[in-house]
Amino acid sequence: MPGKVYIVGAGPGSADLLTLRAASRLRAAQVVLHDDLVPAEILELCTFSARVINVGKRCGRHANSQERINALMVWHARQGKTVVRLKSGDPAVFGRLGEELDALRRADVEFEVVPGITAASAAASVAGITLTDRRAASTLVTLTAHTYREEKLRARGFDPQHTTFAVYMPGPDYGRTASELIESGVDASTPCVVVSHAGRVSQEVRFMALTALGSVSGIAAPAILIVGEVVRQANNMQESQAEIFPKLRAEREVPIANEIHLAAN
Amino acid sequence: MPGKVYIVGAGPGSADLLTLRAASRLRAAQVVLHDDLVPAEILELCTFSARVINVGKRCGRHANSQERINALMVWHARQGKTVVRLKSGDPAVFGRLGEELDALRRADVEFEVVPGITAASAAASVAGITLTDRRAASTLVTLTAHTYREEKLRARGFDPQHTTFAVYMPGPDYGRTASELIESGVDASTPCVVVSHAGRVSQEVRFMALTALGSVSGIAAPAILIVGEVVRQANNMQESQAEIFPKLRAEREVPIANEIHLAAN
Repeated sequence: MPGKVYIVGAGPGSADLLTLRAASRLRAAQVVLHDDLVPAEILELCTFSARVINVGKRCGRHANSQERINALMVWHARQGKTVVRLKSGDPAVFGRLGEELDALRRADVEFEVVPGITAASAAASVAGITLTDRRAASTLVTLTAHTYREEKLRARGFDPQHTTFAVYMPGPDYGRTASELIESGVDASTPCVVVSHAGRVSQEVRFMALTALGSVSGIAAPAILIVGEVVRQANNMQESQAEIFPKLRAEREVPIANEIHLAAN
Repeated sequence: MPGKVYIVGAGPGSADLLTLRAASRLRAAQVVLHDDLVPAEILELCTFSARVINVGKRCGRHANSQERINALMVWHARQGKTVVRLKSGDPAVFGRLGEELDALRRADVEFEVVPGITAASAAASVAGITLTDRRAASTLVTLTAHTYREEKLRARGFDPQHTTFAVYMPGPDYGRTASELIESGVDASTPCVVVSHAGRVSQEVRFMALTALGSVSGIAAPAILIVGEVVRQANNMQESQAEIFPKLRAEREVPIANEIHLAAN
């Protein structure tokens, strides 16, 4: 009886941001191959008898190459096991899903992908902002800082004033990330927010103008950077942020007429 | 005692693609204001005593303007109720979240956003593809067909061969969507996939080259279109698709050496 591999998105890190399907697959797994970034509270969903293996590439074990992870999935599935390959966020967004699917297809191993909450969605919810807004941003561009280290980000094709940029892995050189975005045509005064450990107890949210991004320090990875006019709508504004975003401050003073009308019905 | 509004992402439509947090908020809600697209099996999670209101804009009731939805959220919260505003997908992606947050902030109503699985993630998982791939697509551009109806999509700033386009609401004029993408520099032979009703029983997945998109018909909304080299990796290839994507076909013939080595350990 051949096994099956479930490539499951663990979401941003908080156990209750798993999908019901992901939780169910995890409970049924006989073998779990997980990334470093998946927290213990999620792994606690695994059954007592499950073999839980950290295949993280960051824990200093160079043996955990992508090739070894691929081979582990295939090997355990061929032993007839129900395998969960647990990845942070959504497997389809900067998760090397492509390489893992290639390996499973080549080996003729049955698989299913369970999507997860990607970091950009989690960060937006925590910051109290939207990523697209028909009034401000018609397009969302998702990329990694790493991307435009190799080939500079060319945002000129889009109107930067109507685009939101979600930058995965924006650090550690935030100054360079900021200056490359500015160089590509994003205004230096564009508001941005850095969210690290979104959805965890250690979560941190920092609002600033893009030009101030270079002077931030002490941001723990994993973090995500959201840049665009949508950030102007930010939640929990401090005085210092109000200076950066005068427009929102003014908008908040405007009352809504409709709700009074409705309440009277 | 003032109420609170939870703006909750319902995900793509399958009840088990709700997050655990979303399910828990829904069970605790006293008032639920939901979109048309949220299926009955998700609404069944609401308690018997909850007031469940369809505020969908598509059901012919023009009264359900965005202003009325905003006012309903504020009014019920001011009655001290725990309100869930249930939106399909992720509220932060083409969900008019910005307008609803503005209304809640202006009215000083406490809120929390619970992220959801966005349609692009759901469609990718169903199609068995990744959205980004370090070998093929370093950037994901998310937009609506509506967007580039008003101001033509200008994809020239990005290298279309290294970009994935996730087009929300791509229909009903798929021919126009295709020709505008091609006009902006995306090669006509680029593979694409249209996924409608992702994650539901009525789900449909169609692979084709971008140039063939104009001749598709009978695609039920909601649908999403994914365009880019990542689609070449598609799942469950049919003969006709193999002709379109000869590269993948060839790749599948290549065996993996590593797994054999590992299995011998």
